Formats: sequence, structure tokens, C-alpha cells
Amino acid sequence: MDETLFPKLSAGDTGALSQAITLVESNLPAHAEASARLIEQCLPLSGKSTRIAISGTPGSGKSSLINEYGSRLTADGSRVAVLAVDPTSPISGGSILGDKTRMDKLAADPNAFVRPTPSRGTLGGVARDTREVIVLCEAAGYDTIIVETVGVGQSELAVYGMVDVFVLLGIAGAGDELQGIKRGALELADIVVVTKADGDNKLRAEETRSMIRGTVSMLPGSRSNWKKRVISTSVTTGDGIDEMATTIRSFIDQQRASNEFETTRIQQLKDWFDEEIVQLATERILSLPEYASFAGKIANDGSAPPTLAREFIDSLFRSIDK
Amino acid sequence: MDETLFPKLSAGDTGALSQAITLVESNLPAHAEASARLIEQCLPLSGKSTRIAISGTPGSGKSSLINEYGSRLTADGSRVAVLAVDPTSPISGGSILGDKTRMDKLAADPNAFVRPTPSRGTLGGVARDTREVIVLCEAAGYDTIIVETVGVGQSELAVYGMVDVFVLLGIAGAGDELQGIKRGALELADIVVVTKADGDNKLRAEETRSMIRGTVSMLPGSRSNWKKRVISTSVTTGDGIDEMATTIRSFIDQQRASNEFETTRIQQLKDWFDEEIVQLATERILSLPEYASFAGKIANDGSAPPTLAREFIDSLFRSIDK
Repeated sequence: MDETLFPKLSAGDTGALSQAITLVESNLPAHAEASARLIEQCLPLSGKSTRIAISGTPGSGKSSLINEYGSRLTADGSRVAVLAVDPTSPISGGSILGDKTRMDKLAADPNAFVRPTPSRGTLGGVARDTREVIVLCEAAGYDTIIVETVGVGQSELAVYGMVDVFVLLGIAGAGDELQGIKRGALELADIVVVTKADGDNKLRAEETRSMIRGTVSMLPGSRSNWKKRVISTSVTTGDGIDEMATTIRSFIDQQRASNEFETTRIQQLKDWFDEEIVQLATERILSLPEYASFAGKIANDGSAPPTLAREFIDSLFRSIDK
Repeated sequence: MDETLFPKLSAGDTGALSQAITLVESNLPAHAEASARLIEQCLPLSGKSTRIAISGTPGSGKSSLINEYGSRLTADGSRVAVLAVDPTSPISGGSILGDKTRMDKLAADPNAFVRPTPSRGTLGGVARDTREVIVLCEAAGYDTIIVETVGVGQSELAVYGMVDVFVLLGIAGAGDELQGIKRGALELADIVVVTKADGDNKLRAEETRSMIRGTVSMLPGSRSNWKKRVISTSVTTGDGIDEMATTIRSFIDQQRASNEFETTRIQQLKDWFDEEIVQLATERILSLPEYASFAGKIANDGSAPPTLAREFIDSLFRSIDK
């Protein structure tokens, strides 16, 4: 491992940060140890930022809102890191969007760092190593981390478990979005933002906002001490963006004051530990010779997979429990 | 365990089938053994049906299309089981739709069996025990299993790994749906169906169909020997539903002829084995006293979760590798 990587990164060198993220995202076994050591070095420097998820379906205006919101934060003296979604094809593995140009202001801002994260096989946008990447960005001195995520099921739950505040975007007039599965995302949201509230769309955006307000008022909250807020914004007129910034700040202040902030952060570290355990244990188990011999039975004697799995795990843990 | 359950179920008793599904879906540890034994009994009777996934976003017309398509299948002499999505709230756990009335024809059809499956915490619609439920339905004599699923990321991949053919529904004129993340679902689809192609919507549906055709023609296919087909349907006029049925049949025939059908089925059994292993191993590991003592370090000395996890798993597997 390049021994200068950590000192450079912790001094705020963005080249070193990019290199570190590439290392952490690498799947090469040769990089695993260096990556783990780097995370260990960075962890004591981390945890001081505000971690914000901005989630929404494709076309909901995530990128342009982050571009505007992020620029206002840097103008106020913040250093902002954006982990942007770069949806990849689940089959070809190729990048679908592949451009950084969606956030032009931030891309040119010395106090902002925009990193497209390939969504890989997850179809959703939150990579397995997003937690690690957040730690790296914090160690490099970024005080606000924005995780952009495409609002699709599982990935919303995953990102919810990594951030301090969950902001969900809704599109003006897209009434259907309030039904069925999307309700799950509304339940998770701390703040809902109706985008594109300008021009011909303004009236519809206000109607959508009222409708969402009505819906969320009947939903169970995801936090014990916060009433969900619904805001409408326009990146064209700039309306609502300061309100959104203020609301995010007051949410964080309130969470900190009630101690829920700290409790959540510790829980998230424990969840991270659990995820790592499951991943490592799976890798180890699937590479055992006993695994291969059990798996071979499936095609041969038609044994039931759940029964075989139970026999295999029982025999495995007998040696642990001994 | 009720010893009459398996004989009744294998004789086609729907009451016994419902009871068996409830047993398999139960999370009570007391039910685990009976559930495993039942699956073992049913497995030799299973595997003879056609397994069809019908996937689409809320509002895409999944239920009414399944209602029509399923009725035609039973009219032709099939016995059809539908595992319908019943989206549950990720926080309250309560049912969102909760009705069986969405498929009125099938609900009243003696040759159809409709079972709403709670989507639980997965936000998506495919329950962990869908594989088991398919086996039960097949053992009860159903020759066509339709798995309805809400088109959201991860759950599409999960259901793709459980069925023989993946049918994706698109809504007429919803152009935005073709961008970004939805492309992932299009890549998985064997057959794409544009719904609601009637009345004022007919022209838009044909435009949508052409657009999807153009898109899928450039996509990598998910099968080696099948060119994706795009069909438009209307449950109001009945147009396109026979075409959809014929296309599904010719897809299955072609897969069987090329041997890909059998290879895929065996791979799916192996995947099932792997999933069970991961689940069982996770339960066992998280209940070890050593796990608790490692996890305790996180809040106390600020150790990095990935490092702690590696130490814990290494010590665990030393006793296995000995």
C-alpha cells in the first residue's frame, strides 16, 4: 500500500481521496488488506459530518437539486462531498449515465467533491461500500456528505441505515407515485421535497404538496420526535431551496439535542459490523470443500435445498460449538 | 405436525395448501422443523409447472392482466396458482392493499388459487419463502404458477432467480419509465407487455410499444437464444392477451428444447441452497456469545467495524479449519 495515501487524504488532497475510494471499491483480494487498514486509519477522523440521503425515482430532479443545494452549502463555508448514483446495467455491467456533468456547479467548485458510484448488481444505487466511502470523505475534511440514491425499494432501506437524515423527492403532479410501494419510501422520509415547482407546473406542485402532506400526516413516523415536513422547490427560480436547507439543519439539531443522533450512529456502526460478518462468513463458507460436496448432491439425488443446508450448517457448527 | 397435511395437500385440497403456506411463512421456531419436512415431502412432486413472473410498478395493471390471462389458462384446462403481492408497510407491518378482490374472476374459479403474499420488510414484493410456496403449489397439482411482483430493483432480480419466464409490464405513454433504473428491469425481461392499450390510450400504447422495441433491440439479452418480444394488451377489449399467452408458451418450449430450461432449474436449486446457508449461518453466528462480546467493543473503544468483523470471523473459522 502507498504509505503516503492516508497523510495526503487526511490533508484534504482530492486526488488521494479519489484513489482511496477506488481502492475501497476494488474487488481485488490483493486490495482488501490495504483497504481495511486505510478505513481503520480514517475512522477516528470520521463521524463529524452531516450525512444526508437524497432519494427519488429517475427524472425526479435529484442531480439538479443537489447541484443547487450543495452550492449554497459551499457558499456558506461548508465542504460538500456528493456520492452520486451512476446506474449500471445489471447484465452488461456498463455505465448507463456515466457523466459527471449533471452537477456542473459542484463539479467546478473547489469545496465540493462529486464521486459517481457505480450501482453494480444492486439495481438500486447504494453500493455495498458506501459506508466506507463516507468515512473516507469525512477523513478528508468534508463536513456534509450527500448520498444520492435512486428510489427503488431495498436501496432506500440500505441508505436510510447509513445517514442522519433521509430526504425523498417527489415530482409535481405524479399522483400515482403516492400509491402502493412508494408509501414505504414516504414512511422512511424525514423530509419530502416536491421538485420542479415553477412555471406551468407550480400549481400542480402545490397540489402534490398538499396531497403528500395529507398522506404523511396519517403515516407512522420513522423517528420518535419529528413530524415529517413537505417542501416544494424549484432549481429554476431558486424557491424553496433555502427552506429545505433550514429544515435539514433543524432536523439535525433536534436529533442531536434529543440524543437520538448519537444512538442512531452507534446502531449504524453495529449494523455495519453485522453486514461485514455476514459477507465474510459467506465467502468463507462457500469456499469450504464441504460446501462443494453438499452442493453436488443437489443435481444428483434431488435432496431438498433447505434440508441439505440445515445438515451442512449443523455439521459446520458442531466443530465450533465443541 | 398435522400428519394429514401432506396427503391432503397432494390430493389438491386448497384448505390444506393454505394451511401449508401459512406454516412455511411462519417465523415461529416451533414451525421450522415441520415446515422443512413438508417441503421435503413436496419436493419430489414439484418442478412440473411453468413458473411465470409478472412484474410492474404500482398502477401498471398487473392484477387485472393476471385475472384475464389466468382465466384463459383455466378455461384451457390448466390449474393456476397466483402468488399475489400484498405490499406491507415497512414500519407498521400492516397490509396496504389487503384485498383479494383485485382478481375477481380467478378468486371465484375452482381451478385457480390466489394467495396474497405479504411483502414484509423487503419493500418489494418477493417474500423470502416464495420458493417454498411455489413447491407447495406444484405438489398440490397446479401446473402454472404466476408470481406477481412490484417492479422495484432487488425484488426483480430475486424473482428472476425463481421463475422460468420474466414478464415485465409497461404503462402506455409513461416515457420516463424507459430511463435510468428501469432499463435494468428491461434487461431481465423475456417478454415486455404494454398494458391499457385501448380507447384514447391505444395510439400512445402503440408508440410506447415501438419505443420499447427500439430500446430492447439494443439491450444485451438475458438468455442466449431468445429475442425479447414486446406485446400490447387490453383487459377491456381482450386484445393481445392470447398473443401474450402464445408468446409465453413458445418461450418455454424453446427453452426446454435448448436444454436451457433444465440448466436454469438446477442452478435455481443451487441458489436456493446458498441462500438457506447464508440465512442459517447468520442466525447461528449472531447468537454466539463471542459475537456479543465483539459487538460490545464497537460502542466502547471505537474499533472499526470491518476490522472487528475480520478478527471475529478469523477466530471463528480457526476452530472449523483445525
